[in-house]
Amino acid sequence: MLRGFFSVPLKKSKEHKNMEFLTGAVQKEDLGIAEILAGDYEGKNIKVKGAIHTIRDMGEVAFIVLRRRDGLVQCVYEPGKSQFSVDDLKEADTVEVCGTYKSDDRSPNGFELRLDTIIILSEPAEPMPLQINKWKLNTSLEAKLNNRAVALRNPRERATFRIQEGITRGFRDFLYNNGFTEIHTPKLGAKSAEGGANLFKLEYFHRPAILQQSPQFYKQMMVGVFDRVFETAPVFRAEKHNTKRHLNEYTSLDFEMGYIDGFEDIMEMETGFLQYTMELLKTSYAKELELLKIKLPDVTSIPRVRFDEAKQRVAEKYNRQFRNPFDLEPEEEVLIGQYFKEEYGSDFVFVTHYPSKKRPFYAMDDPADETYTLSFDLLFRGLEITTGGQRIHDYNKLMEKIAKRGMETEGMESYLSAFKYGMPPHGGLGIGLERLTMQLIGEDNVREATLFPRDLSRLEP
Amino acid sequence: MLRGFFSVPLKKSKEHKNMEFLTGAVQKEDLGIAEILAGDYEGKNIKVKGAIHTIRDMGEVAFIVLRRRDGLVQCVYEPGKSQFSVDDLKEADTVEVCGTYKSDDRSPNGFELRLDTIIILSEPAEPMPLQINKWKLNTSLEAKLNNRAVALRNPRERATFRIQEGITRGFRDFLYNNGFTEIHTPKLGAKSAEGGANLFKLEYFHRPAILQQSPQFYKQMMVGVFDRVFETAPVFRAEKHNTKRHLNEYTSLDFEMGYIDGFEDIMEMETGFLQYTMELLKTSYAKELELLKIKLPDVTSIPRVRFDEAKQRVAEKYNRQFRNPFDLEPEEEVLIGQYFKEEYGSDFVFVTHYPSKKRPFYAMDDPADETYTLSFDLLFRGLEITTGGQRIHDYNKLMEKIAKRGMETEGMESYLSAFKYGMPPHGGLGIGLERLTMQLIGEDNVREATLFPRDLSRLEP
Repeated sequence: MLRGFFSVPLKKSKEHKNMEFLTGAVQKEDLGIAEILAGDYEGKNIKVKGAIHTIRDMGEVAFIVLRRRDGLVQCVYEPGKSQFSVDDLKEADTVEVCGTYKSDDRSPNGFELRLDTIIILSEPAEPMPLQINKWKLNTSLEAKLNNRAVALRNPRERATFRIQEGITRGFRDFLYNNGFTEIHTPKLGAKSAEGGANLFKLEYFHRPAILQQSPQFYKQMMVGVFDRVFETAPVFRAEKHNTKRHLNEYTSLDFEMGYIDGFEDIMEMETGFLQYTMELLKTSYAKELELLKIKLPDVTSIPRVRFDEAKQRVAEKYNRQFRNPFDLEPEEEVLIGQYFKEEYGSDFVFVTHYPSKKRPFYAMDDPADETYTLSFDLLFRGLEITTGGQRIHDYNKLMEKIAKRGMETEGMESYLSAFKYGMPPHGGLGIGLERLTMQLIGEDNVREATLFPRDLSRLEP
Repeated sequence: MLRGFFSVPLKKSKEHKNMEFLTGAVQKEDLGIAEILAGDYEGKNIKVKGAIHTIRDMGEVAFIVLRRRDGLVQCVYEPGKSQFSVDDLKEADTVEVCGTYKSDDRSPNGFELRLDTIIILSEPAEPMPLQINKWKLNTSLEAKLNNRAVALRNPRERATFRIQEGITRGFRDFLYNNGFTEIHTPKLGAKSAEGGANLFKLEYFHRPAILQQSPQFYKQMMVGVFDRVFETAPVFRAEKHNTKRHLNEYTSLDFEMGYIDGFEDIMEMETGFLQYTMELLKTSYAKELELLKIKLPDVTSIPRVRFDEAKQRVAEKYNRQFRNPFDLEPEEEVLIGQYFKEEYGSDFVFVTHYPSKKRPFYAMDDPADETYTLSFDLLFRGLEITTGGQRIHDYNKLMEKIAKRGMETEGMESYLSAFKYGMPPHGGLGIGLERLTMQLIGEDNVREATLFPRDLSRLEP
């Protein structure tokens, strides 16, 4: 993985009139961990760059651990061999070291470097404010978020965001492979996709504007163009919730697909995405899974249950009734998650057929009973991580539903015109990236899975 | 590409207590173009879905062309064989057809379907407002943007955004392969990364907030964590420019890398990205390149020239002097592009060593002459598509530069603290996705390469 870019020898043509050229090829002398492990370096001298993570001075020798993007490298300082003084080094220096490779099962990645020389590339101005080189950061979430750029240098802390990369990457690659086109839709708009209370408002060159809370309208319009589309981008919600699972800005993994036979196609596509992604994490993010001791969920098959049936099963088994017949309360979602884990061994469950009155106007009602919709949520370990379903594709039906709800069409002209000129049967979903990450790593606050969270009280860093 | 998801037979386990399960596998009867071409269907009956793109009624027969995400499919209606009336069909119906495969060199993709049956899946409410089934949309940019969701149904129009997908995909895949970690940084902030005049302002729960005009500060902070990071996300600029090359919201392809030996490493990485991406376009987006008659630029090597030398060469060759000695005017960039095309046959040129006073405070000054910076722009066919360079990594030097410029550090505490606690030598760049796309497809207005552009007068659709 670290080869490729650096594997072609430097070759700068200077033939034309003393002009220098870039050729996309740089030969670097310093090695990455994968390169070292792939080579045969026993007893040989190699060069490595990294940040000084820890220094343990044992008197006769000192162990200096370097932190790199690809892991930790243990270096051994030995007076006599090493041509520098360990006293000149401190934590958070970034350095280039030269030393002799020696296999050592006790060291990270199974080797250590017996140091000859060191070059200090940069130095910190002050001692570290957090002990990032502890195995586990012994710090409150609040303190971690306040010092995010430093706290994340802890290898376990940063691993969460490598896992998050794997999820996003799995989402995109799976959809590319299934004929989806990636789109970039605007976040600034004149009107919102859905509802108005939860919108951030701003002035756009003397006109009122909003930040989109979802790419919903745009991705539906683009189904008429590309049949299948997806987007991975920020969404903005001015909700005044201050809970462990709400953010005011988050990354939404959205897709929308046309020519479906039913909303089951959407659920199958999501199941396929989860299968693909768990496999990708297993193969390409094994180090991070190991660091965080994550056991990936089994996604071979995911049960589906109707909303009303889920309510009933949970009420019966746990002897609890919930007040709201039209929605699931968070505690109810937790119990549904528990139920399907206990009864079917599944960490996931699709809850289908949500009541029409709790779904947006564009949701397709179930022809068998129009008080319910052909929609679903996906719960993962008791938390909603996806909302999706089939949408109304017929222009006249869409206009009827809008009229029935007493809604205005102002600001929806472009959206509606896409339907006026024909749209295939379609549906889609939105996945909260941070929530999915949080559930996968087993944290109980979504801020743990957000690089720089935005909530009621946090707008910095 | 279209197989995979649909290739496994449907298998829904109903063993547990009447529970239904999703398995990520759906067997669909309808085929995609790639599936059809990969099979042996001569004389056989197959099923295809799509939108009716054109109907040409020739009296005895009628040609019905379907538009799908993967291309056009020609169908032939023959009274006698076809068990429906062509009069029941109209443009923009979406349909499922069943017909006999027949090789035909004159048809798109080399085959046609002799129709037996047709099922209408959805119908438009009104006739099309634009003739999207013409080879070239004969419409003004303004009209196309007003009817974006319809205009993009034209195969050539939509091809631009497939090319754009290829660029974004190439950027990410190349960087994944080179050890970069993808990050998602917040677009809502308390202070801006750079400068204040060009910021959109809004109210965030009774506090003043801004939309980030760049992920600059965040990606630099994350270099201290992951060594190499990238982001592909929207940025927001409240600039009052109303030109063919400015947008108020665009997609920025950003990366930042640590442990560099010089800013040449950044330029080499960009050159590598361009090489990788042109290859990806050639292999995976050949249809779209063909549709748009795009000749990909040669990126084997890219010349680099100092800012002052570029100015001088252009002034000499074209006998023109430009007034601003500290920056390049757009016309000057065009001439530099022309110069390097004529003299070195290159569509690209790196212009390096921009004057310090025109670069942000974090740019690293050239130790050889501090009035210049270790920075660059990449020009593509005479237009700046990238700005990048080495950054100051030493906390004290950064503070000195801030003081020298008379800047306040308020709101930059988190950014600065990342440096206080040590940062490796690093640099990076930002690429304007829409500008790169525009230059590649040979358009002269960036709005042609923007799905839903946002400019001084346009906030919808």
